[in-house]
Amino acid sequence: TVRNLFLLPGDGIGPEAMAEVRKIIAYMNAEMAGGFTTDEGLVGGSAYDAHGAAISDADMAKAMAADAVLFGAVGGPKWDAVPYDVRPEAGLLRLRKDMELFANLRPAICYPALANASSLKAELVEGLDILIVRELTGGVYFGEPKEIIDLGNGQKRGIDTQVYDTYEIERIAGVAFELARTRNNRVCSMEKRNVMKSGVLWNQVVTATHKAKYSDVALDHMLADAGGMQLVRAPKQFDVIVTDNLFGDMLSDVAAMLTGSLGMLPSASLGAPDAKTGKRKALYEPVHGSAPDIAGKGIANPIAMIASFAMCLRYSFNLVTEADNLEKAVANVLDKGIRTGDIMADGCAQVGTVEMGDAILAE
Amino acid sequence: TVRNLFLLPGDGIGPEAMAEVRKIIAYMNAEMAGGFTTDEGLVGGSAYDAHGAAISDADMAKAMAADAVLFGAVGGPKWDAVPYDVRPEAGLLRLRKDMELFANLRPAICYPALANASSLKAELVEGLDILIVRELTGGVYFGEPKEIIDLGNGQKRGIDTQVYDTYEIERIAGVAFELARTRNNRVCSMEKRNVMKSGVLWNQVVTATHKAKYSDVALDHMLADAGGMQLVRAPKQFDVIVTDNLFGDMLSDVAAMLTGSLGMLPSASLGAPDAKTGKRKALYEPVHGSAPDIAGKGIANPIAMIASFAMCLRYSFNLVTEADNLEKAVANVLDKGIRTGDIMADGCAQVGTVEMGDAILAE
Ligand SMILES: CC(C)[C@H](C(=O)O)[C@@H](O)C(=O)O
Ligand SMILES: CC(C)[C@H](C(=O)O)[C@@H](O)C(=O)O
Repeated sequence: TVRNLFLLPGDGIGPEAMAEVRKIIAYMNAEMAGGFTTDEGLVGGSAYDAHGAAISDADMAKAMAADAVLFGAVGGPKWDAVPYDVRPEAGLLRLRKDMELFANLRPAICYPALANASSLKAELVEGLDILIVRELTGGVYFGEPKEIIDLGNGQKRGIDTQVYDTYEIERIAGVAFELARTRNNRVCSMEKRNVMKSGVLWNQVVTATHKAKYSDVALDHMLADAGGMQLVRAPKQFDVIVTDNLFGDMLSDVAAMLTGSLGMLPSASLGAPDAKTGKRKALYEPVHGSAPDIAGKGIANPIAMIASFAMCLRYSFNLVTEADNLEKAVANVLDKGIRTGDIMADGCAQVGTVEMGDAILAE
Repeated sequence: TVRNLFLLPGDGIGPEAMAEVRKIIAYMNAEMAGGFTTDEGLVGGSAYDAHGAAISDADMAKAMAADAVLFGAVGGPKWDAVPYDVRPEAGLLRLRKDMELFANLRPAICYPALANASSLKAELVEGLDILIVRELTGGVYFGEPKEIIDLGNGQKRGIDTQVYDTYEIERIAGVAFELARTRNNRVCSMEKRNVMKSGVLWNQVVTATHKAKYSDVALDHMLADAGGMQLVRAPKQFDVIVTDNLFGDMLSDVAAMLTGSLGMLPSASLGAPDAKTGKRKALYEPVHGSAPDIAGKGIANPIAMIASFAMCLRYSFNLVTEADNLEKAVANVLDKGIRTGDIMADGCAQVGTVEMGDAILAE
C-alpha cells in the first residue's frame, strides 16, 4: 500500500512543528515496507499571501484526494485585517466542511510527568484521560443566515444561525458511543436544552441513538454551562464527552488547559467511512494555535504535532504498533526530563524544537 | 422613601435561602428609618404547579412595578418533562426579557477563607476579583427563528438564532467600561469573531464605544475559547470581562467554579436607567442553581442569596454602608470558621442554613 499524506504546515509555529514530523516520516520510510508519500500545500495566512485565498482550489483538491491531511496551525497578527472570507481560519473551516470531517476527537490527557504543570491541584488531574468528541461541520459555524445587515440610522445587525438535523446528531453520537466502548464505556452529552431548541433536539436524538444501538454504554446528560463547571471541579468524572461545534470548541479548550499539557495535545477530524472502501477522510492537527509570539525562534513544542501524527497512524492507517511506539517515545523523552520551554520544570533539561524532535526520534 | 422588594424564592433551595434574607430585611426594617416593603410571588416549577405557567402575569406585573426583585432559583427533576414553553427556566427568561435586564453582573471573587476550596492551586485564586458583565436579553437566547421543524422521513431540524444589534452591544459595553472605572480600569471583551458574524460586529462596536467615550480604560479582545483557557490558566489577569449571553453563561460558570466559592456568589441583572427617574429595573439572584438533591434538608448555603441582597442594597438603593456591612458580616463569619457543608474545612464548625443566617445577622 502506498499511503498518501498531504501536509499543510500553515502559519506561525506550524512549519517548525511540521518539520519534526517530516523527520519521523523519513525515518519510517527508511525502515518500513511501503511507507508514505507526501505532498505539501499552503493554508491560512501563508496561502493568502501567495494566492489571496486561505486555501487554493488546487490544494483543496489535493487534501480531498489524500489518505490523510496533517495540518499545522493558522493565523497571526499579520492577517488581522484581511477580509472575513479569506482570513486564515477560513482555510481550516473550508477543509473541515468540504472534506465533511464531522467528528473531531480531542483527547485531554495529562502526561504523568506534567501533572504539576496544571493550574489545578495535581491530584485532580493525575491520570486524567478524557476524550471530547466535538461535532465539526454543523451548528453555528456554518448555519445560514450568517451576515451583518446594515439597518440604517447607524445600526447594524449581526446574525449567526445554529442548525442541527437529526442525522448530524445521530452520526456524531454514534462515533462517541463506539469510542466509549474502546475506553471506559461512558458518554456524557452536553447541550443547553433549557434555552436552545437545537439543544432539545440534540438531547432527544442522543437519547434515541443510545436506546436503539448503544444501550450497553452508560449515558449521562449535562447542561453545557454545568459541564464547564464540572470539568474544572472534578475532570476525572468524565470518560467521553459528546457535544456540538461551539460548545465543543469552548469545552475542549478548557479541558486541554486543565491537563497542563496544552502544547502536547493532538486532535483528529474524521469523515464518514466511504461506502465502498470503508476509508474515512481525515485531518490531524494540534489543539494549540499558531503562537505567533514564539514563531521562528526554534523554541516551539513539536509534541502536539507529533502526537497528531500518531493519531493519524492509528486512525487512518491502522498502524497501531507504530502509533503506540511513537506515543511511548514521547512519554520516554518526558520521563527523561527533556523539555521545551513551555513545559520546563526544575531539574529538567531545556531544549528547542529540533532537539525535541531528535530526542523523540532517537527513542 | 419606601423601598419596594418583590421576592421570588422559586424552587429547590431557593425558599430556604430566601428565608435568611427575609430575616435580614426584618432586622433592617426594625433598625432603619424607612425600610423595605416586601411582597412575594411564585416562579419556576412552583409557579407551574400553582397555575400552569413558569410565572403568572400577575406576578410578572408585580416584578415590573417593584424597585427590585430578589430571585432564588428554579428547576428540579419534578419538572423535567413539562412542555418547553412552561419549563421552570422560562420564568427566569421572561423576567429578564420583559424587564429588559440587559446587564448581568457576575463577580467572581475568592473569599480568602476559601482559597483552599478551589480546585486550582491556591496561589492562582487567592485575592481573585473578576467581574463578568454578561449581555442578558439578546443573542441566541431570544433570537428568532428558534424552533424544531419536522422535515419528514424521520428527520427534524433544530434552529436557534444568534442576533445582536449595534445598540445592544453599545449599551452592555458602556456598563462594562463604567464599572471598570470603579475597579482596576481594564476590560477584556470576548467573542468568536473568527467564526461568527455577530462576533465581528461585537468586536467592532466595543472598539468604537471604547474609542468614542472610554479611551481612559484599558481594552483587550480575546477569542472566547482562548478566554476560557486563560480563565483556567491565570484568572487574576482579568479585571472586567464583557461578553455575550451564551459565552457569558459558560464563562461565568467556569469563573465561579474557579473561586471555590460557588455557593457564595451573587449576581445582579440591571436594566437601563429610566429617562425621568434614573432608576434601573433590577433582579438579584445567586449564581448557583436550585440544588434539588439537598433541598428541604436545611443544609443549603444561604450566602450567595444574602450576598445578592447586598448587591441589591448597593445597586438599587445606593445603601453603600449597609451593603459593605452585610458583606463584612459574611466575611467575618467565614473568618470565624463557621461553615455550611458545601464549604466545610478542617477545624471549622459545620452549621445549617438557619444557623448561618443567624450568625451573619449577629455580626
Ligand atoms: C481556528 C478556529 C476557527 C477553530 C475553531 O473555532 O473551531 C479553533 O479554535 C479550533 O478549536 O479548532
Ligand atoms: C437557568 C438558565 C436558563 C440560566 C441561563 O442559561 O442563563 C442559568 O444557567 C444562568 O446562568 O443564569
